Amino acid sequence: MAKLLLGKPVAEALNAKTREEVAALKARGVVPKLAIVRCGEDASQLAYERGAMARADAVDVAVARVALPKDVRAEALIDVIRAINGDDAIHGALLLRPLPRHLRDREREICDALDPKKDVDGMTTLSCAGVFEGLDGMGFPPCTPRACVEILDHYGVDPKGKSAVVIGRSLVVGRPVAMMLLARHATVTVCHTQTRDVADVTRRADIVVSAAGALKSLTAAHVRPGQVIVDVSVNWDPAKPNAKGGMGALAGDAVFDEVSRVVDAITPVPGGVGAVTTSVLMRHVVQAAARQMQS
Amino acid sequence: MAKLLLGKPVAEALNAKTREEVAALKARGVVPKLAIVRCGEDASQLAYERGAMARADAVDVAVARVALPKDVRAEALIDVIRAINGDDAIHGALLLRPLPRHLRDREREICDALDPKKDVDGMTTLSCAGVFEGLDGMGFPPCTPRACVEILDHYGVDPKGKSAVVIGRSLVVGRPVAMMLLARHATVTVCHTQTRDVADVTRRADIVVSAAGALKSLTAAHVRPGQVIVDVSVNWDPAKPNAKGGMGALAGDAVFDEVSRVVDAITPVPGGVGAVTTSVLMRHVVQAAARQMQS
Repeated sequence: MAKLLLGKPVAEALNAKTREEVAALKARGVVPKLAIVRCGEDASQLAYERGAMARADAVDVAVARVALPKDVRAEALIDVIRAINGDDAIHGALLLRPLPRHLRDREREICDALDPKKDVDGMTTLSCAGVFEGLDGMGFPPCTPRACVEILDHYGVDPKGKSAVVIGRSLVVGRPVAMMLLARHATVTVCHTQTRDVADVTRRADIVVSAAGALKSLTAAHVRPGQVIVDVSVNWDPAKPNAKGGMGALAGDAVFDEVSRVVDAITPVPGGVGAVTTSVLMRHVVQAAARQMQS
Repeated sequence: MAKLLLGKPVAEALNAKTREEVAALKARGVVPKLAIVRCGEDASQLAYERGAMARADAVDVAVARVALPKDVRAEALIDVIRAINGDDAIHGALLLRPLPRHLRDREREICDALDPKKDVDGMTTLSCAGVFEGLDGMGFPPCTPRACVEILDHYGVDPKGKSAVVIGRSLVVGRPVAMMLLARHATVTVCHTQTRDVADVTRRADIVVSAAGALKSLTAAHVRPGQVIVDVSVNWDPAKPNAKGGMGALAGDAVFDEVSRVVDAITPVPGGVGAVTTSVLMRHVVQAAARQMQS
């Protein structure tokens, strides 16, 4: 049975650092503050927002929520973002995505309206370039890929010289996590829907980061003993027993029972990467506040 | 014996398109013009500049050369770049790199002084982000990785669904070419100096892009029949016979005689990727001129 790479201890270690830094900032008169901007009432965005607010509360970061209607015009959303740029009391901003459909063809413009200094979830062009170039201090990477790397760090899995396979090439997870593993000197392969034999590729890896977003897509055939699996996806499995004794629960890409019997270590879903993301977000807010104090 | 993927026919096909577009622009009163900025008198930069000027002449693109002293101050170089930004008659600018040593810690700032619209060799942050995001029209990719992809296109090698291995993770070749192959739906692996067994990785690939910059680093042990090899590096081989009957000539990463006996196709050095780069540069200048006309 694989070792479970639980997110909670990773989050707690990050939170402890954050609380220390918040205390230091407060002693200098600065209360780190995050703005959360949401368009509409999407259930999973509301859940993420609640999680972020609870986490903020736990580490003493202030939060300003901006809830906009689902049919908000692009200009109005951009005005909100510009107001955040101009508000010195707000150090970081999170725009919940995916955006409503009518805003998607202007998503790049909307994301780039945010001052990169306050871009704590890596959505601006500058943050993207920072991840690609492997530079610290150029914006921030998105929180989810950073959470993957924090989990590896916490459990002493050094990617250096190892072979890492990333399944998925999205801009929010796959590509940035590939670049972050490359910066940590892994030999990195990116698989995706056009890859001919994903199982053949993943079996050769030392580390597999699965961000396919496809239930039961990572099976025993994809893995071998000795591997570390980071399962990033959050899928709905109607056939998984839930805590209330019924059926239907969240699940990752891995067929957990069979994969965990083979590999060395695996992050569970829920309780793995997702449990770390908001702690990374709070670290970014505090780092953003510290940088803004210096400038 | 492998098929030789010569750069010249690729360059000629690109040049033919460029000449057509130059004629169309001229008919509308616009003469596409490139500025080449050089600091110092580095021999390989002078050679590249001569090549670019000959290519520009052949496709009827105008060139303005700015030769600065090797000890130029960062501020003076940035002033030159800003003057180019403000000159409507100049559509693209190439800053020859590597920069002199004293400028390197301000390289990001210097590169970002250029208006991304005129960044025809992909050196600005916006161009980097465009390559990472796989977006057309956000700056331009660097010319060398684009030349690799143009060669594959020209010879009908479609990366889609194939396994591509890139050796090298530099920002000028390795990482951008990896992203461009990913955008063309290859399964992409990036190897580098920390990769444990490069030969084991490259032997599994369908396409190998070698940008190691290390003479004789790609041997018969790294390849298998059926592969396409793009050798990007330009190294000096003191033991290679030259055209004058003496010893000492340019060579790629591949031990050409042994590798070319095994694989399906390979780009020679010289006469491969390097023969295409300035043709890509001219295409970018013309595209930049066309975009600037529209805006």
